Amino acid sequence: MEKQSYAIIGTGALGGLYGGLLAKAGFDVHFLLHRDYEHVAHRGLRIDTILGDFELPQVNAHRSVATMPPCDVTIVGLKTTNNHLLPELLPGPTRGGGVVLVLQNGLDVEADSAQVVGPERVLGGCCFLCCNKVGPGHIRHIDYGRINFGNYAPAEKVVTPRVQRIADELVSAGIDAQTTDDLLLTRWRKLMWNIPFNGLSVTLDASTKEVIEQPDSLALAESIVREVHAGAAACGVQIPPDAIELTIDRTRVMVPYDSSMRLDYLHRRPMEVESIFGKPLQVVTQHGGSMPRVEMLCRELRFIDQRNRAESTDTSPPNPA
Amino acid sequence: MEKQSYAIIGTGALGGLYGGLLAKAGFDVHFLLHRDYEHVAHRGLRIDTILGDFELPQVNAHRSVATMPPCDVTIVGLKTTNNHLLPELLPGPTRGGGVVLVLQNGLDVEADSAQVVGPERVLGGCCFLCCNKVGPGHIRHIDYGRINFGNYAPAEKVVTPRVQRIADELVSAGIDAQTTDDLLLTRWRKLMWNIPFNGLSVTLDASTKEVIEQPDSLALAESIVREVHAGAAACGVQIPPDAIELTIDRTRVMVPYDSSMRLDYLHRRPMEVESIFGKPLQVVTQHGGSMPRVEMLCRELRFIDQRNRAESTDTSPPNPA
Repeated sequence: MEKQSYAIIGTGALGGLYGGLLAKAGFDVHFLLHRDYEHVAHRGLRIDTILGDFELPQVNAHRSVATMPPCDVTIVGLKTTNNHLLPELLPGPTRGGGVVLVLQNGLDVEADSAQVVGPERVLGGCCFLCCNKVGPGHIRHIDYGRINFGNYAPAEKVVTPRVQRIADELVSAGIDAQTTDDLLLTRWRKLMWNIPFNGLSVTLDASTKEVIEQPDSLALAESIVREVHAGAAACGVQIPPDAIELTIDRTRVMVPYDSSMRLDYLHRRPMEVESIFGKPLQVVTQHGGSMPRVEMLCRELRFIDQRNRAESTDTSPPNPA
Repeated sequence: MEKQSYAIIGTGALGGLYGGLLAKAGFDVHFLLHRDYEHVAHRGLRIDTILGDFELPQVNAHRSVATMPPCDVTIVGLKTTNNHLLPELLPGPTRGGGVVLVLQNGLDVEADSAQVVGPERVLGGCCFLCCNKVGPGHIRHIDYGRINFGNYAPAEKVVTPRVQRIADELVSAGIDAQTTDDLLLTRWRKLMWNIPFNGLSVTLDASTKEVIEQPDSLALAESIVREVHAGAAACGVQIPPDAIELTIDRTRVMVPYDSSMRLDYLHRRPMEVESIFGKPLQVVTQHGGSMPRVEMLCRELRFIDQRNRAESTDTSPPNPA
């Protein structure tokens, strides 16, 4: 079967790593870049990864979607805080009928892409990886790396051939890709980590290691993990109860890591408060549940985010790359 | 009736202001000082207050309780984080049989003084004032000023003559002193402010004005005020429900203020987490109640306090003055 072509919308940590691995494996990959365009167009990408460091001196770098060809798979790696740009960014690379794979943090984050191309052409996935962009075109991937993805609007809970084909290609590029026939479950499972550890890493201004090693923050993280687990159940999403302990245990053995939200906070960039906290709270409330600690964390983060944005000295336009 | 003599244990914002007003009114007041001893012994106290600025060039300054005479009333203005010093500090000034008036933040903060002199000789009170120590022997009082105090261990709910006598003397010195026949109610009423506004001013690193003006932190503060109100009720302490709205409204019209806990945080001093948060949580839990948001705030503060103490470069001994 012919290799599919890929568009990477948002060449940050995640788009850079996965796009880079696909390009290295010989796939036709097109990267949309903003701030880093000049650098990457001339010097390519540098990927430091536990899978084996590599450089791509020459990549298909685009400053605008106008120059991008239609691609079979468009990977959305933007921060959700930039989702207002999707109506402008998606029509180009998807004009040949390709699908969109949304690899963003939060709940129902596929909705914005679905509004542009239709829900039946949207896939969503969660990435479990410790990876940061450390410089222009320079990605550092230090732990984990799994993608778990599936259809956004499945008629029934099955892994369709198009999902399996993308998974096979990702695996052939060395990516730990897994498919899910229940994207909602996968998203809630990821939120069990994202909500406590992204949130507390900002309100406590601490790494995941610091959060997990101090008794009070650990107890707090555990109680929040439990709350998210119960919130999912209130929405009809049954996650096995051992996931609570596993979430803590895996974080304990994880390398010290600054969550993406903490990095955004430290760099005074907008934080993904609404997709990771606001939306799950809204959905749980609609189902008659409540998550008081998550709500408190959400309010603390909104306060901090608003002040951060007000104090930001960064006057350049939002970075879609 | 002869004027009573006063010992001030902890000449900080509160001890400096009230002790200063008493001394100005002609009472025999003895100040225990530590870091500020040299300064105050030579230059006295400077009190900037909305009641009218004044200076006391000469005061009875003591570096140690060994030189203090027995006093009729010993006012404890220490931070509760220094309560381990009370067995060493109280016996001197109370040796003539005088009483102890504990003006500390939190719940059941009188217990440590009661262990030294016996509960029947202890009075407790809450101060509603915006007052900070801004330099050695220099107090700045910018808003409010009320003390509400009463017996710690009343046989029945009455204002006893000794309480009334102290109140009359404080009033004669220009202090807005009121008596209570229900100290527990008074303490819980104060906690309705202290818990949300001390706590959030640290976790959000914000002034009370900032907390009250941003919609999310305001909603959070309100929900915490409600939780404390319900927590008090769980302990059998019935506070009128309009106190919830009043707490918010009064803070809204208050001058922008850094809570004592935020000042401790900013100066990397130990914070009064256990007396203001830990003890009320413990008591509410014992009564079968729960305060999840307060518990979360408490855990966040313990984490922050522990890091603050570890990072503190202050190697001087704790300051009992």
